[in-house]
Amino acid sequence: MRSAFYISDGTAITSEVFGHALLSLFPTEFEHHTISFVESTEKAQEAKIRIDKATRRAGKPALVFHTFVNNDIREIIESCDAVLYDFLEPFVAPLEQELALKAKPKTHRTHSIHEKTYDYRIEAVNYALANDDGSNINNYEEADVILVGVSRSGKTPSALYLALQYGIKAANYPFTDDDMEELKIPVFLMPFKKKLFGLTINAQRLMDIREGRMSNSKYASARQCRMEVREVEKLYKNEKIPFINTTKFSVEEITAKILSETGLQRYKY
Amino acid sequence: MRSAFYISDGTAITSEVFGHALLSLFPTEFEHHTISFVESTEKAQEAKIRIDKATRRAGKPALVFHTFVNNDIREIIESCDAVLYDFLEPFVAPLEQELALKAKPKTHRTHSIHEKTYDYRIEAVNYALANDDGSNINNYEEADVILVGVSRSGKTPSALYLALQYGIKAANYPFTDDDMEELKIPVFLMPFKKKLFGLTINAQRLMDIREGRMSNSKYASARQCRMEVREVEKLYKNEKIPFINTTKFSVEEITAKILSETGLQRYKY
Repeated sequence: MRSAFYISDGTAITSEVFGHALLSLFPTEFEHHTISFVESTEKAQEAKIRIDKATRRAGKPALVFHTFVNNDIREIIESCDAVLYDFLEPFVAPLEQELALKAKPKTHRTHSIHEKTYDYRIEAVNYALANDDGSNINNYEEADVILVGVSRSGKTPSALYLALQYGIKAANYPFTDDDMEELKIPVFLMPFKKKLFGLTINAQRLMDIREGRMSNSKYASARQCRMEVREVEKLYKNEKIPFINTTKFSVEEITAKILSETGLQRYKY
Repeated sequence: MRSAFYISDGTAITSEVFGHALLSLFPTEFEHHTISFVESTEKAQEAKIRIDKATRRAGKPALVFHTFVNNDIREIIESCDAVLYDFLEPFVAPLEQELALKAKPKTHRTHSIHEKTYDYRIEAVNYALANDDGSNINNYEEADVILVGVSRSGKTPSALYLALQYGIKAANYPFTDDDMEELKIPVFLMPFKKKLFGLTINAQRLMDIREGRMSNSKYASARQCRMEVREVEKLYKNEKIPFINTTKFSVEEITAKILSETGLQRYKY
């Protein structure tokens, strides 16, 4: 199988994201490799050995997605037996012209600490953990958003992703079986009604997930899952709580939709 | 201030990552806007209104980073009073030639669910939460990596990031004051010594973080922080536990270094 390399003098996250987006357009498979922190000519030589080896193994030149500003490192990478794609290069000259500014070659630190925004993120992670799963109902004043939904509808991963990626403080509160008879917004959530964002999920998918955790339980039964989903969706509609069905969405998509619908400000960047 | 827009018919994460990497080369500031899920011509018209408004406000054309495959949507975006950068376009034709394959225009789902890999991630998040901060010492068999370090050295955010981004199961175990006299690898961690990865942090930074949580405590004192850091670093060296100093690094960098040093396989993609 042909290899694709994502390499950088930093985390290589940008190379990875870009390379994956591009390769996903092609109906074929690749062996993916990430080489991060190629900050010295020694590291570049090591990378070259791996890349050349992959080319020989596949009998086809590896694809290498990179952007290096250090000339010595760039030269070593360019000497690889591979096809190179510098994903920023085609845009630098047009942008220089548009902005009437020279690009400042610098070691890449796109995914490095951005002082203030970083503390926001760590604080938001701590907040999400302390306010996970209804564990603390006295802290909602501080929340940017409060995710609600039945157990296993995706609240916890979404709250953590909002915190880690965007520095957003997301609490989450589960509606449980006890709440289901005459489901209402709990009294302690009422003052924060505007912060509520509902998650829902198809009953069949919910059953599958719960079955994996508690096989043959009432909790995982078709009847219970259908009832819970029906009740929370009724609540969202009656109370005009914005909500999304998470069944077919990744945590990236769920959180992007939450941001887009709430207009919440992200702290990253 | 000039505006930069990251827009897409999906999460727009790829546009964002790419656009930020590119703009970070220029020594000037931008107002950043993300518009996700532009999946219809109506949404495209709404985006156009926002973009044109930003151009008028700044007196300079907004920069728009995008990739649209739907022609109707693309035409609307291209009619904006803005400078457009399609970040995949320059690479599609060269790659088509190199791969001898036609790119398949499709709606972008780079950050959507990838079936199996998605379950890995949710499972890994559950694992990280259940095995946070030494809360469960009987589960280390299942761990891909066990992060160790003093309190507030970055273990929890790193473990969660490894789970959410890469589907890697990371437990974390804190060395506390009680362990410090004659610091050793705890007995229950010994069978998993090869999975240990140490975090450390500069004593001054540790003091600042702890001071923010427990002001004027022994826990946050200079003497205590220096002693703990000294002891764990000694342990890492004596026991040959790989470790990194997290002081100047973001969670993306810490985890990229952990992946790079351990060679752990990521499950994403």
